[in-house]
Amino acid sequence: MTDTAPRPTLEAVAARAGVSRATVSRVVNGGDGVREPLVERVRRAVEELGYVPNQAARSLVTRRHDAVAVVIAEPEARVFADPFFALQLRGISKELTAHDNQLVLLLTEGRDDHARVARYLAGGHVDGALVFSLHLDDPLPGLIQGAGVPTVFGGRPGWSDGRAAATGPTVYVDSDNRGGARDAVRHLASLGRTRIAHITGPLDQTSAADRLDGYRDVMGDADPGLVAESDFTPAGGERAMRALLDRRPGLDALFAANDLTAAGALRVLRERGLRVPEDVAVVGFDDMLPVAEQTDPPLTTVRQDIEEMGRLMARLLLRRLDRPGGGTGPRATDEDGPGGTPAPPDGPDEAGAGVVLPTTLVRRTSA
Amino acid sequence: MTDTAPRPTLEAVAARAGVSRATVSRVVNGGDGVREPLVERVRRAVEELGYVPNQAARSLVTRRHDAVAVVIAEPEARVFADPFFALQLRGISKELTAHDNQLVLLLTEGRDDHARVARYLAGGHVDGALVFSLHLDDPLPGLIQGAGVPTVFGGRPGWSDGRAAATGPTVYVDSDNRGGARDAVRHLASLGRTRIAHITGPLDQTSAADRLDGYRDVMGDADPGLVAESDFTPAGGERAMRALLDRRPGLDALFAANDLTAAGALRVLRERGLRVPEDVAVVGFDDMLPVAEQTDPPLTTVRQDIEEMGRLMARLLLRRLDRPGGGTGPRATDEDGPGGTPAPPDGPDEAGAGVVLPTTLVRRTSA
Repeated sequence: MTDTAPRPTLEAVAARAGVSRATVSRVVNGGDGVREPLVERVRRAVEELGYVPNQAARSLVTRRHDAVAVVIAEPEARVFADPFFALQLRGISKELTAHDNQLVLLLTEGRDDHARVARYLAGGHVDGALVFSLHLDDPLPGLIQGAGVPTVFGGRPGWSDGRAAATGPTVYVDSDNRGGARDAVRHLASLGRTRIAHITGPLDQTSAADRLDGYRDVMGDADPGLVAESDFTPAGGERAMRALLDRRPGLDALFAANDLTAAGALRVLRERGLRVPEDVAVVGFDDMLPVAEQTDPPLTTVRQDIEEMGRLMARLLLRRLDRPGGGTGPRATDEDGPGGTPAPPDGPDEAGAGVVLPTTLVRRTSA
Repeated sequence: MTDTAPRPTLEAVAARAGVSRATVSRVVNGGDGVREPLVERVRRAVEELGYVPNQAARSLVTRRHDAVAVVIAEPEARVFADPFFALQLRGISKELTAHDNQLVLLLTEGRDDHARVARYLAGGHVDGALVFSLHLDDPLPGLIQGAGVPTVFGGRPGWSDGRAAATGPTVYVDSDNRGGARDAVRHLASLGRTRIAHITGPLDQTSAADRLDGYRDVMGDADPGLVAESDFTPAGGERAMRALLDRRPGLDALFAANDLTAAGALRVLRERGLRVPEDVAVVGFDDMLPVAEQTDPPLTTVRQDIEEMGRLMARLLLRRLDRPGGGTGPRATDEDGPGGTPAPPDGPDEAGAGVVLPTTLVRRTSA
């Protein structure tokens, strides 16, 4: 434990560097107008003394903490087990770091801890929040509303119809889950398959519900026995595949709601002696690497750019935070957006503004 | 983006629950003396309204944020790729949650971001910090000292000899890396092996340096050509194994500095047509599951309880924070420590107080 030693002061840095307090202050606060050799001397002195600018004083001026919270509404163990979150965090981390904002990941053991997360958000420790993986009956959105920090959601929140009035305009970034699912099922149909099964994700998440809707857009409600609900995990995929084969042994294709589920289903198909794609053609969703390339056979799947979703969420939030007056002023010019990124929504004056990224079918061997 | 809607007030909760403001305040702040049916009514009203207590006001009274930062001095991508960190975070998360403290994970893209991390720590957003994976030349410890928050380190910091005076007493939790390494090499020697190679971790980390010392305790400095430096990753293990086999084709055993390294080395041994354990006996370090069980053949290794290390770090920090006066008062009674946990050090009056957990050799097939 490092005891609270006296913190080096701005004056000490100035003395060490042989410059004025004002010069140190300008360098530390990223201001311009200081010549490069002086900047270098101040930086060296800052490092040698371990000087840390007084954030509280700085925040008083800028009213910013330069910190953004990420809340994933899943237990800590799942966050580390599912590569989906790692990929989104990668995009978020790159974007926040590029703007010198600190990524503050708030981990929990589960839903019981969400009130504590909301207290932290309300405590003035971050400028905004990026929130993922909401389930329909989760109290978190209401709690976050209570915390009063600008928020961007990952995935279309399930309450955008019913609860919109209560929660105010909701900004989210999502993939075209329904369109991607339609592409997957149409591809299977184009191969001449007619008994196409679907293993869903947890249907209290809009991403899973939207993919089921896409499947139904193509298949209709013909045979509900071809649909099995699951939970986006490999073990869940195994269980659902067994149930499907037991009740519909003649199925000739599968659209799995994500790649992890497809990986589990492929193991069961092999175990039952069914050939993929000859007997059962399989399409997944995500194009999660290396999973989708390492299945046996390699997986045909619907690609969504998960890292870009994270990056875009962070960008939308930072842009909002950069507006004078916290969102009511004119929109900041976007000088850092890469080409090809869809234009983000205009902001809080649009109710329920969502950015929906396109998906593409990636053909490998399984279908 | 959720706009800043008016936050529900304590009064609104009291009205909804049909109780007094004082009762709501007592329930919200965890105080006693409120009958259970009333507690239940208040809790329901809090949830329905999405009420979040004013943390700033609460902090003024308790001078606590009930939040602890975790800083891992590695890029975000490595944090999610190496299961070691997930396991330590699991232990930390369980312990912090059990004490209703928020785990605040500060992610970075790399060393350039450490000054920003220190600013966040200094900004009054957390009560203390748990810090991992320090490299010898990392400026982070100095920056954290500047931030002035109580800190517990994971792994013995490399500066405990030289920089001790400058950084004040340092509390850390570590495994017996040197003793565990000795056990591994002695086990290989007991199998009759004499040309025992060692693939190290990055030697600017004390865990890697201590394991090399343990190897040398048994082997002496006989043949430096049997030692190859690596980086704790599977790819690094492959490279080092190739280099070792090229220069010492007659080696008959390998002690790898961790299980991921051993997994990479096993792939190269197989590729070269060498049988394990018949031609080359292999021992790893960590007992990282499922890695150690799923290698071919399953790995004999030195077990360290990584999750328990995380838990113990959190416990040491919380105990320090619970002392009246921030560490100078009498020591809090430990009522929550499980049996068998080594007694933590007495605190800041002991210079360089470390808790070192024992390791055990786990025999599987590879040696």
